[in-house]
Amino acid sequence: MTRKTIWSDLQKLRETAPLVHNITNFVVMNTTANALLAIGASPVMAHAPEEVEAMVGIASSLVINIGTLSRDWIQAMELAMRAAAKKGIPIIFDPVGAGATAYRTETCLNLLRKTAPSVIRGNASEIMALVDSRIQTRGVDSSAAASTAESAAEALCHAYGCVVVVSGETDLVTDGAEKKYVRNGHAMMPKVTGLGCTATALVGAFAAINRDMLAAATHAMAVMGICGEIAAETSAGPASLQVNLIDCFFNLNGEQISRYLR
Amino acid sequence: MTRKTIWSDLQKLRETAPLVHNITNFVVMNTTANALLAIGASPVMAHAPEEVEAMVGIASSLVINIGTLSRDWIQAMELAMRAAAKKGIPIIFDPVGAGATAYRTETCLNLLRKTAPSVIRGNASEIMALVDSRIQTRGVDSSAAASTAESAAEALCHAYGCVVVVSGETDLVTDGAEKKYVRNGHAMMPKVTGLGCTATALVGAFAAINRDMLAAATHAMAVMGICGEIAAETSAGPASLQVNLIDCFFNLNGEQISRYLR
Amino acid sequence: MTRKTIWSDLQKLRETAPLVHNITNFVVMNTTANALLAIGASPVMAHAPEEVEAMVGIASSLVINIGTLSRDWIQAMELAMRAAAKKGIPIIFDPVGAGATAYRTETCLNLLRKTAPSVIRGNASEIMALVDSRIQTRGVDSSAAASTAESAAEALCHAYGCVVVVSGETDLVTDGAEKKYVRNGHAMMPKVTGLGCTATALVGAFAAINRDMLAAATHAMAVMGICGEIAAETSAGPASLQVNLIDCFFNLNGEQISRYLR
Repeated sequence: MTRKTIWSDLQKLRETAPLVHNITNFVVMNTTANALLAIGASPVMAHAPEEVEAMVGIASSLVINIGTLSRDWIQAMELAMRAAAKKGIPIIFDPVGAGATAYRTETCLNLLRKTAPSVIRGNASEIMALVDSRIQTRGVDSSAAASTAESAAEALCHAYGCVVVVSGETDLVTDGAEKKYVRNGHAMMPKVTGLGCTATALVGAFAAINRDMLAAATHAMAVMGICGEIAAETSAGPASLQVNLIDCFFNLNGEQISRYLR
Repeated sequence: MTRKTIWSDLQKLRETAPLVHNITNFVVMNTTANALLAIGASPVMAHAPEEVEAMVGIASSLVINIGTLSRDWIQAMELAMRAAAKKGIPIIFDPVGAGATAYRTETCLNLLRKTAPSVIRGNASEIMALVDSRIQTRGVDSSAAASTAESAAEALCHAYGCVVVVSGETDLVTDGAEKKYVRNGHAMMPKVTGLGCTATALVGAFAAINRDMLAAATHAMAVMGICGEIAAETSAGPASLQVNLIDCFFNLNGEQISRYLR
Repeated sequence: MTRKTIWSDLQKLRETAPLVHNITNFVVMNTTANALLAIGASPVMAHAPEEVEAMVGIASSLVINIGTLSRDWIQAMELAMRAAAKKGIPIIFDPVGAGATAYRTETCLNLLRKTAPSVIRGNASEIMALVDSRIQTRGVDSSAAASTAESAAEALCHAYGCVVVVSGETDLVTDGAEKKYVRNGHAMMPKVTGLGCTATALVGAFAAINRDMLAAATHAMAVMGICGEIAAETSAGPASLQVNLIDCFFNLNGEQISRYLR
């Protein structure tokens, strides 16, 4: 990952405005759509089983997030993932709260077994819960360091042939062979709800224009962390951080990427 | 449309705080409710088939927005629209993403055929998709100029006996005979998710206190555009634009309307 | 209620970050989660009947809010409330829009009859509607003073053995015997959608770490009102008030509590 490749991907994203189809949770729908618009993508939210395949048909990537799952939504996720795999567009999967309830963990595993994703992004607990069902996590937060999930991440890469992102103070991005670390970010970010979901959506945006999933995911996480740092400089608390972060996605330039990337 | 009529409608809205019943999408529920409160209306969101008719019974207008539609919600929309027509309150219809999937287009046409609305507001692609099912749009965005949908807008007016608003850089508002143009607005507005939905909700607010639908819709679009311009002056990006826009709805006065209206 | 007890509860909240399980409405999910995170709690939203009991199993309190209710959600609320009562964690109930439709009022009464809550928080109309079904309220807003619902609040306390909070310019908090009044707050707060729901969620956070429900509810309402006043000082309108309020939850310190508490 170099400053140049992040910047050229971001430019491509803004020029082509790829359609990113999201089946995501109620908590973050608004902020996800705004984050995708600000970074340069074109978001669409659609979850009716009757239309998800058609929507995948005009999309450049698919983001699946189980944050507020229920029966009908799972059916839509399954249909959309199958359609995306058939069409050959990237599928980004966010196992929100895996390990918190058996229902979440099992839903994830059922979906993943039916259609392998291109990228899975979660926090350390969620990633570990997908590998070892004895892991019990606490709600949707995680304080565990990403490094604790390194071997679980590798196991997931091998099981599904996908890239795995483990979010934390330092993010880990791996395809099971190579490992990338993203050291940008700010301590106030976990105090904003759904920034993990935003990261997943950004991976969806970058994956739509760069079919090297390891690079796309790393670029997305770097942009997320860099903008979080820049936004935090002028934020009095988590709500203004949320506002400034999205403004920063919109304004991010090559000079900032060069200056902030660690 | 004069500065005076916009201002007197806005004053009436703030004095009477009409109840606007919204059946809308998950992405914009919060911002729609906040926009309606800020402009002076009293919003309520209710979608259970068991209660929508009763809620229409205490409402002054009904806003239907299919942005994240599914089976149960469509049933509720149908019941609410029928109840609103029977009661004689305005129905404002937003065909979000019509043309993106056949499911969206057909759902719109089914709802419209069963109960004619008072106003339809969409972007050019959505309005054209309601007239010509061969139109394929891309997600929920539209870059097409409102003018490209002039004849489609007129056709819709005649088909349903309603007013049609086509949003764009210049908004078109027509009842099939007269045409009004609203030239206010700002280039950053399409970078905020759901501002089209907000415009639709504002039409619902103005329609609740002014039964001349052509005037009500034009006033709402003017207020939307004026506040967008004022908000953009102090906004670093789309997220602060969203915040400033709602603050501006709350503070908008007659002097600003006079100064900004084009 | 003294400055000291509010501050010590707030410190305990931030140190322990209790998991607050919310089954709430679509309008406020994002702001509720952000408010809970900012004040120091750990929010989770989960509504699938298949998982709510398991989620209650790891939670420290349960918040039920019927703002955008429908059949499946009611079933989940019932299951979650029963599990919470069995586990012995506090249940906070928000009857949004009770009295606006019979469906809302009856749903509330059915849920309450099956499982008594620890705290009910509503505006005056909602509280009265739970006692006298002839009360017809207007949407989800209320302009009635909290004092008009004093006897209704007491009746609810006795019926369910719970604490009742009636929000208004002055908030009333009572267990049917003792009465506490919270005089903090700001006139612009009702112009922000869902701040009542935020208050309910804060009660859930304080109830998770202080099992004296009268104290917990009073502390939460005081924090809500104090932060509303502080936030309003620098807010141009309701959207910036929402942002500043959450920032203020995050930054609130003992000195501010002492200075602002009335």
